[in-house]
Amino acid sequence: MEPRPTMRGLWLEGGKVRLRDDLPRPAPPPGEALVRVRLAGICGTDLAMTRGYFDYTGVPGHEFVGEVERADGHDGLVGRRVVGEINAGCGRCELCAAGMPGHCGQRTVLGIQGRPGALAEQLVLPAASLHPVPDGLPDEVAVFVEPLAAALQIQQQVAVRPTDRVLLVGAGRLGQLAARTLALGGCRLQAAARHARQWERLRRVGVEVVYPEQVERRRFDLVVEASGSPSGFALALEAVRPRGTIVLKSTYAEPLPLETGRVVVDEITIVCSRCGPFAPALRMLQTGLIDPRPLIEKRLPLSEGPRAFELAAAPGAFKVLVDPRA
Amino acid sequence: MEPRPTMRGLWLEGGKVRLRDDLPRPAPPPGEALVRVRLAGICGTDLAMTRGYFDYTGVPGHEFVGEVERADGHDGLVGRRVVGEINAGCGRCELCAAGMPGHCGQRTVLGIQGRPGALAEQLVLPAASLHPVPDGLPDEVAVFVEPLAAALQIQQQVAVRPTDRVLLVGAGRLGQLAARTLALGGCRLQAAARHARQWERLRRVGVEVVYPEQVERRRFDLVVEASGSPSGFALALEAVRPRGTIVLKSTYAEPLPLETGRVVVDEITIVCSRCGPFAPALRMLQTGLIDPRPLIEKRLPLSEGPRAFELAAAPGAFKVLVDPRA
Repeated sequence: MEPRPTMRGLWLEGGKVRLRDDLPRPAPPPGEALVRVRLAGICGTDLAMTRGYFDYTGVPGHEFVGEVERADGHDGLVGRRVVGEINAGCGRCELCAAGMPGHCGQRTVLGIQGRPGALAEQLVLPAASLHPVPDGLPDEVAVFVEPLAAALQIQQQVAVRPTDRVLLVGAGRLGQLAARTLALGGCRLQAAARHARQWERLRRVGVEVVYPEQVERRRFDLVVEASGSPSGFALALEAVRPRGTIVLKSTYAEPLPLETGRVVVDEITIVCSRCGPFAPALRMLQTGLIDPRPLIEKRLPLSEGPRAFELAAAPGAFKVLVDPRA
Repeated sequence: MEPRPTMRGLWLEGGKVRLRDDLPRPAPPPGEALVRVRLAGICGTDLAMTRGYFDYTGVPGHEFVGEVERADGHDGLVGRRVVGEINAGCGRCELCAAGMPGHCGQRTVLGIQGRPGALAEQLVLPAASLHPVPDGLPDEVAVFVEPLAAALQIQQQVAVRPTDRVLLVGAGRLGQLAARTLALGGCRLQAAARHARQWERLRRVGVEVVYPEQVERRRFDLVVEASGSPSGFALALEAVRPRGTIVLKSTYAEPLPLETGRVVVDEITIVCSRCGPFAPALRMLQTGLIDPRPLIEKRLPLSEGPRAFELAAAPGAFKVLVDPRA
């Protein structure tokens, strides 16, 4: 029996998410693989797109675990469970050659830019972007590889010393994962958070939590801003010590005001950080160093996709997962 | 004969600079030294203060070479020609203990904050802040130690690789010095400048110069922003490659708008940079690696101090020196 020529998926247009059953099934070009999505997550960037943060019309979603259905020239992948890196570079430019396809000017980005996303029955990514998931790693854990990799990009860019005083601002989806990886490095970590549920999830893994108002001023060697709010950035600036570092893990709708009288005189370094390395994220999930399951808010079938976005947008909500097979 | 109980010096108040002859002679507390100023320079920060960038009332000036007249407990310094580090920390706090007196919350800063400056007959600094000037190094070269140290702070904070494409934005007083030290590292350096005189001074030392409009976009590994203008920062953001670094050497009257959609997605690092190390600056001037003399705009007696500030404020002006002994 031939599969239907169309498929079901979520569709983002003008900031609204709706379910469609008339989407064209993606057809992989040479070198790319067709993946059946088993489970997908909703991330802050997806929500930002519904608020018009940037323009994308198409299938959203970039966190997924799926099964390879076709991969011409990469037959070993067929039938494997995989996760996938979301940036697909041109493969020819200087940045791709330098090992930075995620910064290629011609890149497509799964569910974000020029490439239909994961909140549908099937997706297409370059075979080279796929990472097999070890047997025994449940889907609801593997689906966290992409956001955990983004959290690990902090340590990929900045040396976090065990003696450092580190402040994490924001304890939402990304912040929770960043807190866990930072804590594993042995640093003196505090997290500034407001919601009781965020506090509970952090304390459960031994992370000290304070209210934003309680944060000591000008004392932290490293501040990770993962709140996505301008007030979070303002707090980061107040908390960081002279010659300290702020890692910005968020984008913001409006330009942030950078007070040079403060940052230049205090010689602050601001490191902007986005997607991260998949291999260590997979390792840490496989060995159980990170267990993301307490961070699952809800698991819903694709047919309830619009509701999944609503749930994910609630203040303090953790990870909402969508199952396209259900 | 007793010296007059008062001295001559420039006085900054409400953004205006005037000559006074009724200033109290500074009296060094224990551990500090009395220095007779031989030559002082006017810097962008001094000019910014006249434009109300921040509030300082008192003797301005922080670039100087002088002769030690008194230094209780440091007799070896008396009679020596010296330059001096401008930040004087409390010596007791965590930042001072960590070797960062320049970031001490209780610090005074020569001619900038809580300590009368160098544009007068005499000044006082901690004896530990003074560096003897080698014989044979002329005053008009030694007076560049402080700004050259500030330029070298770039390499102190950031690894500038010989293969890096580096853009310098702004070729004024500080930019000219930064261009010279960066060029010595062998990197592929371009400077973006507008004034013909700035072009000439850079080309004379073999630095490639372009107009700001000619700068290639998203291509530079490292961009040093030394123009002090928001348009210079905007150019730096356009020029830096993904995952590249911007070093901010300037403060700006208004907050800079930081477009996170650009800097976070492109994972830009922004390193803010201020004062630098004196010892290597002295070395580079002594060995002749850097000859700052072509950057001297004019040398005037202290009595013409207000005019010196006017000259220094002219577009494209280089270093104006003031001689308090003349």
